[in-house]
Amino acid sequence: MIRVLVWNEFMHEKDEDNKASSIYPDGIHNYIAGFLGKEEDIEVSTATLDDENCGITKERLENTDVIIWWGHCGHHKVPDEVAVLVQEAVLNGMGAIFLHSAHKSKPFMRLMGTSCSLTWRESDDLERVWVNVPSHPIAQGIGRYFELPGEETYGEPFGIPTPDELIFTGWFEGGEVFRSGCTWTRDNGRVFYFQPGHETYPTYKNPDVQKIILNAVRWCNPVIRIPDAMDCPCLPRVHSFNK
Amino acid sequence: MIRVLVWNEFMHEKDEDNKASSIYPDGIHNYIAGFLGKEEDIEVSTATLDDENCGITKERLENTDVIIWWGHCGHHKVPDEVAVLVQEAVLNGMGAIFLHSAHKSKPFMRLMGTSCSLTWRESDDLERVWVNVPSHPIAQGIGRYFELPGEETYGEPFGIPTPDELIFTGWFEGGEVFRSGCTWTRDNGRVFYFQPGHETYPTYKNPDVQKIILNAVRWCNPVIRIPDAMDCPCLPRVHSFNK
Amino acid sequence: MIRVLVWNEFMHEKDEDNKASSIYPDGIHNYIAGFLGKEEDIEVSTATLDDENCGITKERLENTDVIIWWGHCGHHKVPDEVAVLVQEAVLNGMGAIFLHSAHKSKPFMRLMGTSCSLTWRESDDLERVWVNVPSHPIAQGIGRYFELPGEETYGEPFGIPTPDELIFTGWFEGGEVFRSGCTWTRDNGRVFYFQPGHETYPTYKNPDVQKIILNAVRWCNPVIRIPDAMDCPCLPRVHSFNK
Amino acid sequence: MIRVLVWNEFMHEKDEDNKASSIYPDGIHNYIAGFLGKEEDIEVSTATLDDENCGITKERLENTDVIIWWGHCGHHKVPDEVAVLVQEAVLNGMGAIFLHSAHKSKPFMRLMGTSCSLTWRESDDLERVWVNVPSHPIAQGIGRYFELPGEETYGEPFGIPTPDELIFTGWFEGGEVFRSGCTWTRDNGRVFYFQPGHETYPTYKNPDVQKIILNAVRWCNPVIRIPDAMDCPCLPRVHSFNK
Repeated sequence: MIRVLVWNEFMHEKDEDNKASSIYPDGIHNYIAGFLGKEEDIEVSTATLDDENCGITKERLENTDVIIWWGHCGHHKVPDEVAVLVQEAVLNGMGAIFLHSAHKSKPFMRLMGTSCSLTWRESDDLERVWVNVPSHPIAQGIGRYFELPGEETYGEPFGIPTPDELIFTGWFEGGEVFRSGCTWTRDNGRVFYFQPGHETYPTYKNPDVQKIILNAVRWCNPVIRIPDAMDCPCLPRVHSFNK
Repeated sequence: MIRVLVWNEFMHEKDEDNKASSIYPDGIHNYIAGFLGKEEDIEVSTATLDDENCGITKERLENTDVIIWWGHCGHHKVPDEVAVLVQEAVLNGMGAIFLHSAHKSKPFMRLMGTSCSLTWRESDDLERVWVNVPSHPIAQGIGRYFELPGEETYGEPFGIPTPDELIFTGWFEGGEVFRSGCTWTRDNGRVFYFQPGHETYPTYKNPDVQKIILNAVRWCNPVIRIPDAMDCPCLPRVHSFNK
Repeated sequence: MIRVLVWNEFMHEKDEDNKASSIYPDGIHNYIAGFLGKEEDIEVSTATLDDENCGITKERLENTDVIIWWGHCGHHKVPDEVAVLVQEAVLNGMGAIFLHSAHKSKPFMRLMGTSCSLTWRESDDLERVWVNVPSHPIAQGIGRYFELPGEETYGEPFGIPTPDELIFTGWFEGGEVFRSGCTWTRDNGRVFYFQPGHETYPTYKNPDVQKIILNAVRWCNPVIRIPDAMDCPCLPRVHSFNK
Repeated sequence: MIRVLVWNEFMHEKDEDNKASSIYPDGIHNYIAGFLGKEEDIEVSTATLDDENCGITKERLENTDVIIWWGHCGHHKVPDEVAVLVQEAVLNGMGAIFLHSAHKSKPFMRLMGTSCSLTWRESDDLERVWVNVPSHPIAQGIGRYFELPGEETYGEPFGIPTPDELIFTGWFEGGEVFRSGCTWTRDNGRVFYFQPGHETYPTYKNPDVQKIILNAVRWCNPVIRIPDAMDCPCLPRVHSFNK
């Protein structure tokens, strides 16, 4: 069983004047949890900014295999302590998937160490997401590309450390390109950043997007949990000169 | 002119009971600044924990091309704000060289996003540093390897993101290996971590170590400074359909 | 079922004056096939230089999921056409594990594009293989390190492209270090190089070595086979301007 | 002085029915040599398929710092021995820049080990080349992007090993994206692949393209030449047990 926690700031969807409220009336987190929860090997729960301490404790993360994070205008509302808990859980082995505007979330920025900046524009551009690595587990079932009729445009340069793997590259009608699907290993944990998912578009209803998130959950699922990744143990000599 | 700032916590060298006080009576920072300052293309200054705000301001870093950082037991005494200033200066283009126990310094940990942990032991092991990439600018003038008669032993796993380049690997008499020379790019800045340099050994007096630090200063020297690396600009469409 | 083909030049083991003949009387290939074949999910076959065309055809490789290659003094006896078949099968998705002196085999050199050179010595050095990435699937069940009482010493620089992942680093009693476990992706196929395994030592009888080879077989098992990886298709425009 | 050799198959430009004959009447090689030769620090020569042995000998390459290679329909006419000479010179330290359709040249394919395949189309698409890494030496003086009013469209997946650095990404009017500027290190030599440059467009007359090729020549210029990169020396123990 892969235990997934879908975290969402859950702000836009509660705003009647924001399209997100009609696209995801129960919140992006519940929508994503909905399709993930249908899988036999996935057990999903959710948390938001509204929950006490963002619904995140050390114990809860010890019992989470993969966290999925969506945030946009509420990054600053996430306490530093929560961001540290998420970062340390990843270093210990928990997988993490950061979606769209989560590139500027506290946990993602802590794990990357860089600006995570980019250029952006809301102009209803068509986006076409191309597969760079057809053999990657995250890209299975996708084909050469898929299209989103409207998305928020993101553009390079994307202020990230060189990804271990660049799986998807986005083409935007307005002229930009973007490194839309990237993986990194951070100590014992795997991290996947996936660019599509602006709240005013039904992106998470797209079957290719759902497939990718599902593939990514299985790819991020920890191989092993090593709870003391932060330690610096003092260890004795191993060289004995006697064979 | 490459403007170098050598930052050192400057604690052990002021402790009469610590060997560092006789090896580096004026402090590791002044010793390193001494040999770097002899180069015609290098202009060097120093700063320590004793200086106001660690001697670090946004303006000073804007006028620094490469910072060299040595710290060990005083990491916690560096204010978070100072660590953020160093990190952001690197993202904007300033080069950074982290020496030995600076693997656990606040600026290095911010730039890496990982535990930066390792195993360690003080047992006077001989260390032999091997060159993995003889054509790397940082490895020029070194030969196949060099030896340090005594060093603090560091061992794997080293909790770092996969280095962009692994330049040196250390062999320790007590049985360990270590990724002793690693580079990363962080947005516009270059980072080099170099493992040798425990305060109770005259490591910085070793000519190969000095050559490597000098090479690294020149390698880290910024290609360009981009002061707004942290920004996320909103930019108009570039696609005109009119060619 | 993972279909594994163990390929060995099978020369030293037939030479009575070579220790390999008493350590692996049926050949290294049959020894490795022996322990792999005990796994329920693995179906193993073997081939050697003695077989017609090295026992390698396009069809056989299409029905092979992972090839394991051991060669030393007979690299030149492998026809270029066989090396090309192996390379292309990897590009289409077949996994490949190259052991020890196979660093200079024709298929490995074709896949790397580099010299694949190193320094070497036969002096009965103890080797200690350290794990750099404890969370890697190939390193599971290994612990911090394992020891081989005697091995042929390999030393840096190792003329390989920067590995995608460095999983193991070797420490040799005679003073060297070596990048002993490396992975690369080559188009749709995964490649793992593992340094231990000189024919005059019972290395493949070591349980950690067996565990690693078994883990590697499962890690290299193709995600997908794409038979036309070599093609350059001419494809029509996808951009329709009509959303 | 950087000694550059510009190699071009020089076939299309001699065909009256091909636009290349009017765009580059003296051949792409002479056009590129023309603008490079204006630089004070560059000494340029050329060679083509018409020259004896393609104008390439071991001695000539020992005296070449950077080779630039353009080929398209004549890859098969380059003898394997010439491709091996180029590959080995790169391994020894010579820099190499492969332009456009040279992705399928024998030297580039030898150095990569992969299919080097891609999708393509000649449909006069506008291409916009974006800069992923503004601080990279090759990207200096370029700005956020530059445009080519018409180019041959290349599309992913591009069958290359993961580049060490991805410097440019291309956006094509017809809907594709492509990893248009990539670097790799191959033993002691640096390799840069740059996608623009179809022979029926005046791409090499574009000032940004010229700037990039010039920057790349300086970036590829060897740090060191190590003539015996292919050797595997047998070396004595360095560990003495006596410090």
